Amino acid sequence: MRWARISVDGTPRTGIIEDDLIALVNGGMFDGGTRTGETIPLAKVQFMIPFEPRTFYAAGLNYAEHVIEQAKANKRDPELPEKPDIGYRANNALIAHGEAIVKPRDASEEFQYEAELVVVIGQHAKNLSEDQALSCVFGYTIGNDVSERRWQRRDRTLWRAKNTDTFKPMGPWVETNVDLEGLETVVRLSGREVIRFPTNNMIFSVARYISAMSRYVTLEAGDMIWMGTEGHSENMQPGDVCEIEISGVGTLCNLIVLET
Amino acid sequence: MRWARISVDGTPRTGIIEDDLIALVNGGMFDGGTRTGETIPLAKVQFMIPFEPRTFYAAGLNYAEHVIEQAKANKRDPELPEKPDIGYRANNALIAHGEAIVKPRDASEEFQYEAELVVVIGQHAKNLSEDQALSCVFGYTIGNDVSERRWQRRDRTLWRAKNTDTFKPMGPWVETNVDLEGLETVVRLSGREVIRFPTNNMIFSVARYISAMSRYVTLEAGDMIWMGTEGHSENMQPGDVCEIEISGVGTLCNLIVLET
Repeated sequence: MRWARISVDGTPRTGIIEDDLIALVNGGMFDGGTRTGETIPLAKVQFMIPFEPRTFYAAGLNYAEHVIEQAKANKRDPELPEKPDIGYRANNALIAHGEAIVKPRDASEEFQYEAELVVVIGQHAKNLSEDQALSCVFGYTIGNDVSERRWQRRDRTLWRAKNTDTFKPMGPWVETNVDLEGLETVVRLSGREVIRFPTNNMIFSVARYISAMSRYVTLEAGDMIWMGTEGHSENMQPGDVCEIEISGVGTLCNLIVLET
Repeated sequence: MRWARISVDGTPRTGIIEDDLIALVNGGMFDGGTRTGETIPLAKVQFMIPFEPRTFYAAGLNYAEHVIEQAKANKRDPELPEKPDIGYRANNALIAHGEAIVKPRDASEEFQYEAELVVVIGQHAKNLSEDQALSCVFGYTIGNDVSERRWQRRDRTLWRAKNTDTFKPMGPWVETNVDLEGLETVVRLSGREVIRFPTNNMIFSVARYISAMSRYVTLEAGDMIWMGTEGHSENMQPGDVCEIEISGVGTLCNLIVLET
């Protein structure tokens, strides 16, 4: 099932996607929702981020080739993470499918996409074993962890490198029916394929992360975990369109514009 | 004016503190609120965290002696931050004045308080100059940035060292009438004074941080910024009571218990 949040005459509404229609519901996706009988053609829909996250977790380094590529760019030896230590991003940076990523005037050329699977938590979870861990997952969506590499190297934290306004496109919807092993991630920059990788080829699996996190932190409906990206990223220029497709989940598409 | 959020028969209610009473209001503190005429004696009140933060920002290293002490503990040369690069903490860890800080069974002896001034943002803010920066501040409260130093040294991120459930006491209320220059922070551990410092003796001021942040991120009502702490922290043991007083703001008080 695919849950979306859309803007209807400026008001956020939740709906379920069925073929080329969206069926509106009362209530939110985590509460189940009750169909109102109204439908809207998908082609006319203005997407919003599918939910307002409670806590925005991010794995950061979680694919081997990406760790190696980042180390090379920073002229350091690669160090694979030894355990699933989660990090954070910030809600101010979130934008929806179809909204523009704004490149700040003072950002460098190293302004790059990172294609990520986003795990959406659907219920209270504490002290889950790895076997139990996926039971708290509501579904999955797609994230673009846009990064300014010069700021990422030079600042003491990742705040503006990763969390400048509009640097976190997410969506277009949440898909609840996902087989992690079957997923493939593809990125196209202005139509040209730039990377393709098996989404589940992670250093630490979704279940491993959730289990480790839930030993110390309580997860709740509306928390989300961005699972990291693979390989080398190319620079994005104003005017580029960045498309991230995860097979079986959907395609997140955003235009890059220069800050005015 | 002092704004608090309290639990009344299990329901969160907002109120204004007047002497030894709390006057209940309808609406939240950022909307102004309308007095209902009901009052409750302060002595009978169960405090909640004064608001649910939208984004939980934290300065981390922002007092010179603390930087030097932390470097000494980590056997490194101290490096003072060169600019105000903000960091993040997570809402799952927040607890109210009067609630217990739970020390995990596998935490080391280096389980420490950090007394921090918390800046509460009251309105939309983007691209503020340093002169304008304080105009978006609603008020101030007190935070205890509880830290497990072994995890802080060894993990790749600060997630469990700083964000384990209950590691972020905050409160007891938000004070809107504050002269930053006049503030003094005092910490007492089970009644014994362990540190005292001028609260505003920061490397980067509140205004400097807000101005720098608002160049890249949009601040909104309900965002908050924890401003860092000074000096050396001592270890807290289960059974200890940690009290953080900031003159003119209030006193945040929490008992430490061992995880069962």
